Amino acid sequence: MKSTQPTILVYSPDRAKAYAECVRNHGFNHIKVAATSEEAKKHLPGTEIILGWKFPTHLLNKPSASSVSWYQSMGAGVDDLMADATIPNNITITRIVDQFGTYISEYVFTFLLYMLKDVARMKQSQRENRWDPFIPELLAGKTIGVAGLGSIGAEIVQKARAFQMNVHGLSFNGKQAHIVDRHFSPEQWVAFVKDLDYLVLTLPLTDATKHIINHDILLAMKTNATIMNVGRGALINETDLVSVMRKGHLKAAILDVFETEPLPVDHPLYTLSNVHITSHLSGPSTTDGVCSFFVNNIQRYVNDQPLQGLVNRQRGY
Amino acid sequence: MKSTQPTILVYSPDRAKAYAECVRNHGFNHIKVAATSEEAKKHLPGTEIILGWKFPTHLLNKPSASSVSWYQSMGAGVDDLMADATIPNNITITRIVDQFGTYISEYVFTFLLYMLKDVARMKQSQRENRWDPFIPELLAGKTIGVAGLGSIGAEIVQKARAFQMNVHGLSFNGKQAHIVDRHFSPEQWVAFVKDLDYLVLTLPLTDATKHIINHDILLAMKTNATIMNVGRGALINETDLVSVMRKGHLKAAILDVFETEPLPVDHPLYTLSNVHITSHLSGPSTTDGVCSFFVNNIQRYVNDQPLQGLVNRQRGY
Repeated sequence: MKSTQPTILVYSPDRAKAYAECVRNHGFNHIKVAATSEEAKKHLPGTEIILGWKFPTHLLNKPSASSVSWYQSMGAGVDDLMADATIPNNITITRIVDQFGTYISEYVFTFLLYMLKDVARMKQSQRENRWDPFIPELLAGKTIGVAGLGSIGAEIVQKARAFQMNVHGLSFNGKQAHIVDRHFSPEQWVAFVKDLDYLVLTLPLTDATKHIINHDILLAMKTNATIMNVGRGALINETDLVSVMRKGHLKAAILDVFETEPLPVDHPLYTLSNVHITSHLSGPSTTDGVCSFFVNNIQRYVNDQPLQGLVNRQRGY
Repeated sequence: MKSTQPTILVYSPDRAKAYAECVRNHGFNHIKVAATSEEAKKHLPGTEIILGWKFPTHLLNKPSASSVSWYQSMGAGVDDLMADATIPNNITITRIVDQFGTYISEYVFTFLLYMLKDVARMKQSQRENRWDPFIPELLAGKTIGVAGLGSIGAEIVQKARAFQMNVHGLSFNGKQAHIVDRHFSPEQWVAFVKDLDYLVLTLPLTDATKHIINHDILLAMKTNATIMNVGRGALINETDLVSVMRKGHLKAAILDVFETEPLPVDHPLYTLSNVHITSHLSGPSTTDGVCSFFVNNIQRYVNDQPLQGLVNRQRGY
């Protein structure tokens, strides 16, 4: 029987205290807080559970971390954890699931509509006190392709239906193939992208998906198509993307994630007028959202029930 | 038995020829075209049906118009026709219905999302090559009130559902009350608006709805609420709106329609930073859309079937 008050280390470079307070407010009292590698090292002995963001994972295979049995990530993507093969296999890793679909799908439709309707033109006309009626295009009838049909992809699909779009999808396991009009497997990327008006990437970053969007895939897309990345930056080979966007092959790229974040101020993506850049804000980890997911998981943990968001380390997410 | 080739006058100050060509392509050959009052006067004798936009209605009670039995408007709103009491009662008036819901509902969500997510801030950060993560608000959980639950209002309601919003509605006949979470009658405007985050006006302009949004209604709204008008400009008392927006009582007003259109360049609405102005483009009458609606109605007409979009002149729309 596990203790109903496991010892928890909350780690975050900037928001550790807020998370700790929220978890404490749910009745868990054995909580330690760390914002730096030094503090983490000091608090690891005796720690059973880590709630972490950008945790110094090299500490986890040290003897001082031997009491750790579960690591809950504050994010949906765990590619940083998967990249560290030294994390002992007996540490269970979980990620946040089902928390970001609403945020990310709202972001997706914000930008699809902003671009398609030419809101920039409307705002410019207003600034010039100018009456400028024109007929905006319709999202209805356009074709969207969602790569990745997990909880985030599924919410994008559901909203695309409400906008009467044609909905295609690509996924690795095919479990959600029934929610789209046409489903493609990872062997069919070219066939998948060639008919799309919009390609939206929600895939996790794994060995199988890194740089999956390269020169060949980008050139297989229609010239008036738009690509949107709300997954992970390295899904796209950015060098290839810059080259293709410079040639004007695609209508637009809408990017919320990048190979290097924050995006360096001198990055060539900033120089391209058909590229729209936002600061990894489409699926924010809110304190309340992460905390309530974690608290629910602690209750499962102390009652020996299966955890939510369990990461399969072979699969990579 | 009516002729299968009725004589049709197509009237529009700027697009008459395009409409006429489309109708002709559907096999109707007795077509006359007019773009001015003079041309209309010349072509009225013998005309049975008018497809019109901004038609000089004072001509309709003249002897030269005695052959006219049906007037099909190119728009959804017919307040200009209703305002002319001299139009003989034996002329049937129809308006376009079920054509604008997709356009207008896309416009509504374009602006709700654009404002809520603060796209302007995201674009400004990009212009400054600046990494600026922030947590945008969620549309999910907010409350939208749709005034007018015809085909346009119904499509807004359906998309609001996909965004997991609370949906309230106000309508005059209550027929569609079941599609909203809470329904209000025209006696309950204050109760209707006081809990809303967003008030969207899709009502027709009639004696009962003119200036229905006045100082009292605007002040009954929450201070962080947004009003959006995609119906007719005169639903809102613009003098009252300018006064309330100057005081900053509402978060924003999103206006696609105005008491005077085009909106005069020196109109005070242009001076208010919390007012977003577009040029009556949310529900465009496309040639194809209007033409196919009209052609379907001609076929009903020649077969003595009930016309679609029949205007009830007592009701005013």
